Amino acid sequence: MKNLAAVTLGLLGAAALAQPRIEPPHWWVGMAQPQLQLLVEAPGIGARQPRLQGSGVRLKAVHRLPSPDHLVLDLELGAQARPGWLELHFEGGASAPLVQRYELRARAAGSAQRQGFGPRDAIYLLVPDRFAQGQPDKTLPAHIAERSGQRSNPGDRHGGDLAGMRQALPYIAGLGFTQVWPTPLVENNGAAYSYHGYAASDFYAIDPRFGSNADYRDFVAEARRHGVGVIQDIVLNHIGASHRWMQKLPSPDWVNQWPQYTETHHARMSLLDPYAAPSDQARFASGWFTQNMPDLNQRNPFVATYLTQMSIWWVEEMGLSGIRTDTYSYSDRDFLARWSARLMAEYPKLNIVGEEWSPHPAVVAYWQRGKKNHDGYRSSTPSMMDFPLHGALLASLTEADGHDSGFTKLYEALAHDFVYPAPEQLVLFEGNHDTPRLYSLLKEDAVAMRMALSFMAATRRIPQFFYGDEILFTSPAQRDDGRVRAPMPGGWAGDAVNAFTGQGLSEPQREMQDFVRKLFTWRKAEPLVHVGKLMQYAPEHGHYVLFRYQPGDKRRLMLVLNKNREPSQLALRRFPEMTAGVRQVRDLLGGPTPALQDGVLSLPARGAYLLELSE
Amino acid sequence: MKNLAAVTLGLLGAAALAQPRIEPPHWWVGMAQPQLQLLVEAPGIGARQPRLQGSGVRLKAVHRLPSPDHLVLDLELGAQARPGWLELHFEGGASAPLVQRYELRARAAGSAQRQGFGPRDAIYLLVPDRFAQGQPDKTLPAHIAERSGQRSNPGDRHGGDLAGMRQALPYIAGLGFTQVWPTPLVENNGAAYSYHGYAASDFYAIDPRFGSNADYRDFVAEARRHGVGVIQDIVLNHIGASHRWMQKLPSPDWVNQWPQYTETHHARMSLLDPYAAPSDQARFASGWFTQNMPDLNQRNPFVATYLTQMSIWWVEEMGLSGIRTDTYSYSDRDFLARWSARLMAEYPKLNIVGEEWSPHPAVVAYWQRGKKNHDGYRSSTPSMMDFPLHGALLASLTEADGHDSGFTKLYEALAHDFVYPAPEQLVLFEGNHDTPRLYSLLKEDAVAMRMALSFMAATRRIPQFFYGDEILFTSPAQRDDGRVRAPMPGGWAGDAVNAFTGQGLSEPQREMQDFVRKLFTWRKAEPLVHVGKLMQYAPEHGHYVLFRYQPGDKRRLMLVLNKNREPSQLALRRFPEMTAGVRQVRDLLGGPTPALQDGVLSLPARGAYLLELSE
Repeated sequence: MKNLAAVTLGLLGAAALAQPRIEPPHWWVGMAQPQLQLLVEAPGIGARQPRLQGSGVRLKAVHRLPSPDHLVLDLELGAQARPGWLELHFEGGASAPLVQRYELRARAAGSAQRQGFGPRDAIYLLVPDRFAQGQPDKTLPAHIAERSGQRSNPGDRHGGDLAGMRQALPYIAGLGFTQVWPTPLVENNGAAYSYHGYAASDFYAIDPRFGSNADYRDFVAEARRHGVGVIQDIVLNHIGASHRWMQKLPSPDWVNQWPQYTETHHARMSLLDPYAAPSDQARFASGWFTQNMPDLNQRNPFVATYLTQMSIWWVEEMGLSGIRTDTYSYSDRDFLARWSARLMAEYPKLNIVGEEWSPHPAVVAYWQRGKKNHDGYRSSTPSMMDFPLHGALLASLTEADGHDSGFTKLYEALAHDFVYPAPEQLVLFEGNHDTPRLYSLLKEDAVAMRMALSFMAATRRIPQFFYGDEILFTSPAQRDDGRVRAPMPGGWAGDAVNAFTGQGLSEPQREMQDFVRKLFTWRKAEPLVHVGKLMQYAPEHGHYVLFRYQPGDKRRLMLVLNKNREPSQLALRRFPEMTAGVRQVRDLLGGPTPALQDGVLSLPARGAYLLELSE
Repeated sequence: MKNLAAVTLGLLGAAALAQPRIEPPHWWVGMAQPQLQLLVEAPGIGARQPRLQGSGVRLKAVHRLPSPDHLVLDLELGAQARPGWLELHFEGGASAPLVQRYELRARAAGSAQRQGFGPRDAIYLLVPDRFAQGQPDKTLPAHIAERSGQRSNPGDRHGGDLAGMRQALPYIAGLGFTQVWPTPLVENNGAAYSYHGYAASDFYAIDPRFGSNADYRDFVAEARRHGVGVIQDIVLNHIGASHRWMQKLPSPDWVNQWPQYTETHHARMSLLDPYAAPSDQARFASGWFTQNMPDLNQRNPFVATYLTQMSIWWVEEMGLSGIRTDTYSYSDRDFLARWSARLMAEYPKLNIVGEEWSPHPAVVAYWQRGKKNHDGYRSSTPSMMDFPLHGALLASLTEADGHDSGFTKLYEALAHDFVYPAPEQLVLFEGNHDTPRLYSLLKEDAVAMRMALSFMAATRRIPQFFYGDEILFTSPAQRDDGRVRAPMPGGWAGDAVNAFTGQGLSEPQREMQDFVRKLFTWRKAEPLVHVGKLMQYAPEHGHYVLFRYQPGDKRRLMLVLNKNREPSQLALRRFPEMTAGVRQVRDLLGGPTPALQDGVLSLPARGAYLLELSE
C-alpha cells in the first residue's frame, strides 16, 4: 500500500507537468508473443531515462526517436508476469521524475481460441452514425470539433450511436444475422465530414459521439448474448489529418512523405504486375488516400508494431470475432504479411477479411492465406471481400445471357474458385457503404433482388448484407456516399417510418424484410450451406442452377435462378448427379413449392427457387 | 526389280477388288518415336491377315475393329529402317491377296529442329476461299459436291486458292509479316457452305478447290523464300458430316455418340470448375459442335493416334513452322496433353497455338505449356490465342477510362501476365475469322485502330493480323461470318479495286495499308520488341504508356496511347525507371516526332506514339 500511495503521488506530481500517454493503454499476460512495445508520448520524454518496476517483466530496450516528445520501450513479459500494475519511471529531466502506472490484465477465458466468423455466419454491415440513435443527449468532450449536424445534409453527422446499435440487436439477430460489422467506431475528430470513421484521430478511443469504450464493450457483450459476433473495421493504411501525430510526428517517416503531395493512383495491380515500375508500386502503397488521410509508413518498424498491437488490443479488449481491414493492399505488403501472421498466431481461429476492390479473382486470391503466389508472397489473412463474385452476380441479373454475359458471368466467376486457397472463407456482399444500393443497381426489381440474395445465402461463401437493403434502400446508380449511407428509419425519435417495428413500411418493403428474415433464419440452421459441397451446372435457357450436398445427407439443396418471364420447365435429368432418386421437392423458405411431375419442375414465374430435394 | 514388278502386279490385281487406303499415306524414317500406326480401309480388310515385307520394320500388332472394313497395324521402325518402300500383304480373303506398297521417306535436313513461329514473328491470317484466285479454271474431281458459288452469296465458295495465295506472298511479306496462317485447306466436301474448311472430309488431302497437296507444298516452299513461315490450321475436335467415316465408322465409338443429338453447351469452364458436374464436362467435350460436325472421340486410342500422326504428317510433309489448333479445349483434355507432348517431342522448337475463346487469363493459362495447374493437368502446347488481352485492348479503346474500364482494363489485363508461364509466346490478335472487323468494332475510327495495332506490335506477344484490315474491312458489329470473311479486292480478275497493287483504294485505305506496312516492317527488325523486357505504367489522364528495353541497350522503345483529343503533355519524370538520362526522342515509324522540352513531351493529337528514346 505504501508503494501505491507513492505511485499515486508521483502521478499527481507528474500530471502537473504532462502526464505521459502510453499506448497500448494496457496489455495482458499470457499472450502468445511475450514482447510488448510501448509508445510513450509526453513533452521532453525523449530525453528521460526510463526504468521499469514490476516482477516478471523486463525492459529490454529503449528506442529514442527523432521527436523529443516520444519514446519507444520494448518490454518482455516473462513466465512470471502476473496481472497487476507495473510502474514506469522516467528520470533525468529538468523537472521531477515522471511515474506512470501500466496495467497488465488477465485474459478472458478462451480468448486465444475464440471462434472467428466463418461460413456458418451471415454478416450485417451498418454505418453507426446512420443506423440508430439511442442516447441523443450525450455530453461531448471539449476537444471534439464536429459536434452536431443537419440530418438533411448527407455529409453531416446524424447522431447514430452505440446505444442505438445495442437497442437494435434483437432486430439484427431476428433477421437471422450472426455477425455485425459496424464501419469504424474510433475517434475521428475532423472538423467536418467526420461521420464515416475512416480517418482516425485516436486509435484507442471510441468516438465520443458513438459512446465510450465501455459502451462498445457492453455492445459486444450484449451482441454475444443475442448470438451475434462483432467484426471491427480497422484501418491500417492511414489516419485522419486530425490525429495528434500530425501535430508532432514521432519520426519524419512515421507517415509516407513525398516531395509534394502525392495521391495513390489506385493501381493495385502494380503489386502483382511482372512489368510494374517500382515507382508505380511505391505510389500505390505510399501515396495518400486523400489529403485528409495521411498515409502511415508501415515500413517503419515502430509504426508496424503499433498497428499490430492496436489490432490485437481491440480483439482482446472487446471480445471481437474478427476484423475487417479497410483499403487492405494500400498498406505495405510485407507489413501485412507480418501483421496477419501475428494476429493469427495470437488467435488461430480468428477471422480477418481484407478489402481489395478488384474485379479479378487472381488479384483477390493473392492476399488470401494459403495462396502460393508467383512472387513468393505469403499472407495469413484468412478471408477477403469477394468483389469479383459480387460484380458477376450483379452482371448476371442485369445483362442478357450470352457467351460472356449474364448468367455465364456468374457461372464462370464461381468456377474461378480454383484460384482461391479457401473460397468458402471469402465474404460475398450484396452491397456495402461504398457501392450504390443493390435495389437501385437492379433497377428497383424486387424479384432480381431476391435472386441476388438467395444466391448470396446459398453459395459457398460468407454472406454479408448491408443495413437498409431489407427495406429497399435506394441511391443513385453512381457512387454517392451520403445518399448510400442514409439513416435507417426508426433509428431516431420521431421517425414516421420505423424499420425496426415495421411501422409505416410500404408493402414491398415489408415483403423484402420478411424475405430477408426467412432467408437468413433458414440459412442459420442449414448445415448444407455451412459445410456442404457445391455443384453448379452451366446456365441454359435462362436458368442458373446450383446444388449444395453432403455425403451421407439424402437431402439436397437446389437453388434455381430463373430469368424466364413466362412459365418454364426444368427437367431434373439435366442434373443427373444431384437428382437421381429424387421424388420430393419442398420450398425451403415456406413458400409455394413448384410442381414436380415426371421429373420435370414447373417454374411458374421469374425468380429464385430455393428448394430441398429428397427421395 | 523382280520384287517391284510383282508388287505392281499385285497392286493392279488388288485394285480391281478394292485398293486399301492407308493413313498416314506415307511416313519417314528417323522420327523421334519409332512407332507408326496405320489405319487400313478396304471392304472386308478386317478379316484378312496382314504381313509386312521390309527391312528394319516390324509389324508389332494387328488390331481388329468392329468394322469389317478397317484394320489397324502397329509398326515399329527399327534403327535399320531406311527410306524406301515396304510391302503390306493382306491375305486370307475370299479373293486374291491384296498387296499395298507403303513408302518410308527420308526427312528433310533440320526437320526435327525447325524453328517454329515466335515472338520475332508477325502472323497474317487469311481465309483461302476469300483471299485470291490464281487458277480459275481448275478441273475438279467428280466426288466434289459444291462446285462453284455466287460471289454475291457470302456463304458460297468464292474460288480463292493456293495459286492466288502464292501470287500474294510478295504482298504479305512486303507488309512485314513473317508467318501466314490460312484457315484450313483440307478437303471439306459438304454439299453447301463448305468454304470455311472446319469440317474435314479428308484429313490428308488439300481441297481440290484450293489446289493439290503439291500446290500446298510449293506454296510453303515459296513462302519460305519470302521469309514467311506457314502455320497450319488443324481441327482435332471434329470432322465434317461428309467425311467417309460417317458412312462407315471404324468403330461405333470413333465419334462421340449420344442417345439423342447433343450439342456442346460451350461451358468450357466446366473443365476447370471445382464445382462442375461430370455431365457438364462430358457435354462440353463430347457434345457436337454442330450437327454437321461429328465430334471425334479422342478417348479411343486409335482416333488419338490417327490425329497425332496426321498433325505430324503435315508438319513434316509440308515444312510447316507451326500449328493453330481449332476449338482447342473441346477435344479430350488428356488426349491434348499427349498430342502436344508428342508433337513437341518430335519438333522441340515447333510452336502450336490453341484457340480457347475465353476472356479469363486463368482459363487460357490452364492450357499453356509450363502451367502448374490446380488439378495437376500439364500441357505441352507452347502458345494460346490471347482472347483476354484482345478483349481488354478493344475495351480500352471504346470505353471511357475509369476504376475498372478503358485503359485500366488494358493495364490490368497485361498485368495478369503473372498467371501465364510464358506470356511472350501468346498470340495477340486484332481480329480473326470469327470476330467482327476491328475497324467496325472501333466505330470506323482509324486513329483508334492505329492505337490497337501499335499496342499489338509493341507489347510482349506474337501479333496476329487479319487480312483485309489493312484496307479497313468492315462488318456488322455482331458476328456475321460471311461478311467478316469478305473477298480481298484484287484477288479476282476484273476486280475494280486491288489491295495488292493499291489500285482504286481510298485515301483512308491507302493510309492504313501504309501504316500497317511501316509498323510490321519496323517490328521485323526491332530486337527490343522480339526479346526486350517490358515495363508498363498505370494509365493516367488518358495516357497509357509502356516501354520495351534491354539491359545493355541504351535505346528504349516507348509506346504512348493517347486518348486526349486536345494537345496534351507528358512529363518523362513520370517514368523515372525508363527515362533517366534521356535527351533524344525519335518517331520509330518515320513520322513527325513530338517535341521534347525540359523533359516534357508535347503530344499534339490523340493517337499512338511509337518512340525511340536515347541519351
